[in-house]
Amino acid sequence: MTASVFDHPFLSGLLGDEEIAAFFSADADIRAMLAFEAALAKAQAEHGIISNDAAARIADVCGNFLPDVLALRRATATDGVVVPDLVRQLRKAIGGNAAEKVHFGATSQDVIDTSLMLRLTSVCRLLRSRLDDLRSAFEDINRQWGSEALMAQTRMQTAIAIRVSDRVTAWSAPLTSYQDRLDRMDVVSFPVQFGGAAGTLEKLGDKAGAVRAALAEHLGLADHPQWQSQRTTIADLAHILSLISGSLGKFGQDIALLAQAGNEIELSGGGSSSAMPHKQNPVAAEALVALARFNAVQLAGIHQSMVHEQERSGAAWTLEWMILPQMTIACGSSTRLALTLAGQIERLGVAAG
Amino acid sequence: MTASVFDHPFLSGLLGDEEIAAFFSADADIRAMLAFEAALAKAQAEHGIISNDAAARIADVCGNFLPDVLALRRATATDGVVVPDLVRQLRKAIGGNAAEKVHFGATSQDVIDTSLMLRLTSVCRLLRSRLDDLRSAFEDINRQWGSEALMAQTRMQTAIAIRVSDRVTAWSAPLTSYQDRLDRMDVVSFPVQFGGAAGTLEKLGDKAGAVRAALAEHLGLADHPQWQSQRTTIADLAHILSLISGSLGKFGQDIALLAQAGNEIELSGGGSSSAMPHKQNPVAAEALVALARFNAVQLAGIHQSMVHEQERSGAAWTLEWMILPQMTIACGSSTRLALTLAGQIERLGVAAG
Amino acid sequence: MTASVFDHPFLSGLLGDEEIAAFFSADADIRAMLAFEAALAKAQAEHGIISNDAAARIADVCGNFLPDVLALRRATATDGVVVPDLVRQLRKAIGGNAAEKVHFGATSQDVIDTSLMLRLTSVCRLLRSRLDDLRSAFEDINRQWGSEALMAQTRMQTAIAIRVSDRVTAWSAPLTSYQDRLDRMDVVSFPVQFGGAAGTLEKLGDKAGAVRAALAEHLGLADHPQWQSQRTTIADLAHILSLISGSLGKFGQDIALLAQAGNEIELSGGGSSSAMPHKQNPVAAEALVALARFNAVQLAGIHQSMVHEQERSGAAWTLEWMILPQMTIACGSSTRLALTLAGQIERLGVAAG
Amino acid sequence: MTASVFDHPFLSGLLGDEEIAAFFSADADIRAMLAFEAALAKAQAEHGIISNDAAARIADVCGNFLPDVLALRRATATDGVVVPDLVRQLRKAIGGNAAEKVHFGATSQDVIDTSLMLRLTSVCRLLRSRLDDLRSAFEDINRQWGSEALMAQTRMQTAIAIRVSDRVTAWSAPLTSYQDRLDRMDVVSFPVQFGGAAGTLEKLGDKAGAVRAALAEHLGLADHPQWQSQRTTIADLAHILSLISGSLGKFGQDIALLAQAGNEIELSGGGSSSAMPHKQNPVAAEALVALARFNAVQLAGIHQSMVHEQERSGAAWTLEWMILPQMTIACGSSTRLALTLAGQIERLGVAAG
Repeated sequence: MTASVFDHPFLSGLLGDEEIAAFFSADADIRAMLAFEAALAKAQAEHGIISNDAAARIADVCGNFLPDVLALRRATATDGVVVPDLVRQLRKAIGGNAAEKVHFGATSQDVIDTSLMLRLTSVCRLLRSRLDDLRSAFEDINRQWGSEALMAQTRMQTAIAIRVSDRVTAWSAPLTSYQDRLDRMDVVSFPVQFGGAAGTLEKLGDKAGAVRAALAEHLGLADHPQWQSQRTTIADLAHILSLISGSLGKFGQDIALLAQAGNEIELSGGGSSSAMPHKQNPVAAEALVALARFNAVQLAGIHQSMVHEQERSGAAWTLEWMILPQMTIACGSSTRLALTLAGQIERLGVAAG
Repeated sequence: MTASVFDHPFLSGLLGDEEIAAFFSADADIRAMLAFEAALAKAQAEHGIISNDAAARIADVCGNFLPDVLALRRATATDGVVVPDLVRQLRKAIGGNAAEKVHFGATSQDVIDTSLMLRLTSVCRLLRSRLDDLRSAFEDINRQWGSEALMAQTRMQTAIAIRVSDRVTAWSAPLTSYQDRLDRMDVVSFPVQFGGAAGTLEKLGDKAGAVRAALAEHLGLADHPQWQSQRTTIADLAHILSLISGSLGKFGQDIALLAQAGNEIELSGGGSSSAMPHKQNPVAAEALVALARFNAVQLAGIHQSMVHEQERSGAAWTLEWMILPQMTIACGSSTRLALTLAGQIERLGVAAG
Repeated sequence: MTASVFDHPFLSGLLGDEEIAAFFSADADIRAMLAFEAALAKAQAEHGIISNDAAARIADVCGNFLPDVLALRRATATDGVVVPDLVRQLRKAIGGNAAEKVHFGATSQDVIDTSLMLRLTSVCRLLRSRLDDLRSAFEDINRQWGSEALMAQTRMQTAIAIRVSDRVTAWSAPLTSYQDRLDRMDVVSFPVQFGGAAGTLEKLGDKAGAVRAALAEHLGLADHPQWQSQRTTIADLAHILSLISGSLGKFGQDIALLAQAGNEIELSGGGSSSAMPHKQNPVAAEALVALARFNAVQLAGIHQSMVHEQERSGAAWTLEWMILPQMTIACGSSTRLALTLAGQIERLGVAAG
Repeated sequence: MTASVFDHPFLSGLLGDEEIAAFFSADADIRAMLAFEAALAKAQAEHGIISNDAAARIADVCGNFLPDVLALRRATATDGVVVPDLVRQLRKAIGGNAAEKVHFGATSQDVIDTSLMLRLTSVCRLLRSRLDDLRSAFEDINRQWGSEALMAQTRMQTAIAIRVSDRVTAWSAPLTSYQDRLDRMDVVSFPVQFGGAAGTLEKLGDKAGAVRAALAEHLGLADHPQWQSQRTTIADLAHILSLISGSLGKFGQDIALLAQAGNEIELSGGGSSSAMPHKQNPVAAEALVALARFNAVQLAGIHQSMVHEQERSGAAWTLEWMILPQMTIACGSSTRLALTLAGQIERLGVAAG
């Protein structure tokens, strides 16, 4: 089934982003959740909470465990989260004494939120590099036509002549700021989530801090007190995703308007029409506007989830699951389409007088 | 890939609705688009625009044509819509003189919007019958515990004692109004979309109105002037989807609060926790709240698409595609989960004093 | 202070609507709340619950009572609603035995929601008549230039020639549907809200239904069981407000695009620029787009309020107060500006070939 | 008129914030706009673009000029912005040769956006200090009851016992991060907006950069290339406003749930009910939830405005005006009410076992 354009058999050709979407596959999620369980066992062995043998056995099984996904689906219907059944299946696969040692002191949210953080780390790196490519593309455009004249338009009316480079700067400058933020996120890194049943790691006693630090290190995440009901990190990420698609939506809207006026731009690769063979529709430009508006809408949902009651809100948390993956892919698609569109510009501006 | 919880390998167990989602599969869309082309050919043959032989050949091929979906995907990337390539493939399959007669006078939006209307007709019928089931479930609850006492809560504070039936009425009464609307939609029926290149059916001359009426009749849709840039029907549908999930979100929130207080309700089938085996989480209740908030957020996107510029806005239209299917499935899931949750109520209220 | 553009000392010149905004003044609200109290007393006297003398005294005082608004403000800060202090002040003004009879069996929400319904009834009548004016304006445009040629634009590209009347129909047709709905709302009429402390009118015993019916009749509202936690009426109203501003946003966007292209339209009355005296900015057209997007955003908040927990949710209800008045005024401003803009069209289309 | 709860005669008692709202008065805006014009004249005199005498005369008049606000309102209706008429009035007041020197090389957006930046600088300082107070309040709570037991609630179900301090940390920790950001905004400071007609400062020739730097310095803002169509700063500000109200909404929701359960909290100062004198409604707690959901909704509108077409979008810019002031005041009210609510806590938790 194909509820979402982002993995739709044919609409994903226009709107999808396979590279980003791969991080939101069930498989990628399961791999990251198993990495959490393995790293937790390792950290707990290092601090004498479980035996080295148990940790080794857990790591071994987690390394290539293939859960019964249909059983996960059935259990998620009842439990609201996948982890209880995943851990049950995992314990059966581990067997022996080590079985009971997996997931010790942890709760579902630890596994699910940390899996997300691991994958978002990779996604941000990817987006950052896409923005690099985009800025290069804008520099190319600048190099070729930056000194040509363009008629500035303010409030949908002809204003005065500017240079093409003035317009290109408006497209490109925000990306630099976004790259800096993505870099900062990468350096600071996303936080591990580890709090146990209600956030107090009560089963780990005075080793709680040390185990959490080791867990974070093994996973390449930042050590951070549990944030299970504090969703600022999620909201920050969603904000930057929408900023990126928003700025690229402005680029798309500008190109669409240039293409409509017709005299200041030449574009290749436009879409064909089933009714009018002569048309060259600026499809990528329009899609950028749609993706920007989509993410702007979604951001409201992520911020609704800031009202995350008590120690864990099933309602607020589930709402994030419905929204964040698609915001991320929409942002990815924006960067992909913006790069495509930049490459379709065959001429921009007119010879400066 | 699994961008959306609604078709996610395991999260769909909680949040999906297979029955509704089926109407948004690529296959269901393609079948409905082919039904449009077949019905159009039939209508045009009836009015002497194409030959009966051509129409028969077109209907024949449309009845079981299986397009090359990968090719559709590639073409959608360029064209922004699937129809030009679908028609190209279809013409090849039809062959001969009839090939050029398929899709005559139509445009992509005619095919895509009409396909949506056909499928929404079935969806609304299904939702209507789900609401019937839900009202029956609420009547059952009423029959069993309606006269028991319940402590009313206003502004999160104990107010005065009411009857269980008072609360159940607040859950059930809005559904009656929604059923009436869905009935009305079904009777009035969704409108066919048929306008050609720019809405004027210019290729059909003075037969335009008659062909459109015949097309609508063959498809079981209402005959209606083209509405390609007038998206009220889409917004109305989205509004009712969000009304339904909103009212059921109130039901979910109420049950979750009752379950938290503990003394006035007994629920079966709660979710288990990976950290606390004693818990019985009211998972369906929380999911209902999440689905309500999700649809409330999405509705804003559909209304943004009301600003549908000129004769056809790629940006506004594409935005609908990103949002409407998931709103529909979310509404479906709400009805499904509400029915589940109603069935999990083992006791409601306390013996009236 | 001037938080909102709608009553801002200078921005309201562009975006405000004095006629509609008047219904949301504190004074209009107080008058409507006092009308509720007077009508309630009258209904209760008719059914022997209070004396005719008391009802007469209450009606008398309510007819011209001027509350101490600063005291209301202070009390609202604590009580979250204005009614307890308004009733306290009112009782003092009434004095004697009748004092305790005012507001008998009612609760704050009865007063506040009914006051809103009373005012929305008038607002809808006004909007309906504005849509009449707008349709006349579009008919005028049609009469003058309907048969001129206009180049259709699909996906921001030149398509084929259509008539001006084709475009005008896309602007005007949705308004007919909105008028029908506003008419229906007016005929069916908005529902009285009357439920008492927790919706059961427990103080009125077996006279509850009769008193509510009489109350509704005196106020010119529909008799309807209490709907304090069922907010469909509010959401329906918000939906139509956003539909209207959305369709007029499309009109605005179309005019702005025509004005930018320049050759197919001539507009008078454009805005001047502080930097470029030669410009004629299509200010009303842009404001229509902004108002459409504003209402689309706000609608999401009204639908969030559908999750109205238990017998009365302070949170969900307060959220409505923050949003609905401005949505209504925004819709009013849209109709006002659309009428202005329609009147600024000096020429549309080009001589048909 | 009183479209907005934030300056409503009585609702503002609950939801308003006079201190923050003052920065959005027409008067504060006019004062800041005049400060821009004075600083611009000074900067231009320093660089020999206008005479020192002219700059002195301009500064003099700007220092205490009181424009005709009704005339501004009328002009804004036509121009879409207040600046052309403000400058016209200002020139008349300045008189002589200096009259033509005011606003030289600038455009409306320079004045309006810079005025906003000036006022937001003060607002952020204020919010920062409010967060300080709030953190102190939470520390007080912690000091008094931090070691008491609280029953953790996960997914609306009793989980395990934690300490009050665990819950308080979840309320308080995010505020530290928000303070850091507000500090950073204050240090980095908001950017001046100065670009002239179409962003190129074409009238200032090779002195453009120097004049802009001097202008920024005189106003205490950061020197920054014009960002008229790049709205990231606005979106960043809106994001943090919604983060703050979102986190405080979680605090409010938690208190409301504690108040409903009743045994773990004692609150003073609750609201009274017109129907049930025994009640103590947690009014501030509910208002915090409403404000959080309000800002979450509004943020979507600010992000829609990222699609800011060409050199200046009247539509996208106007949409910001409708939303940002109220988001700011809503955030202010959240901090105010959270402080009130924290002060109403008379007891939290139960004696630890």
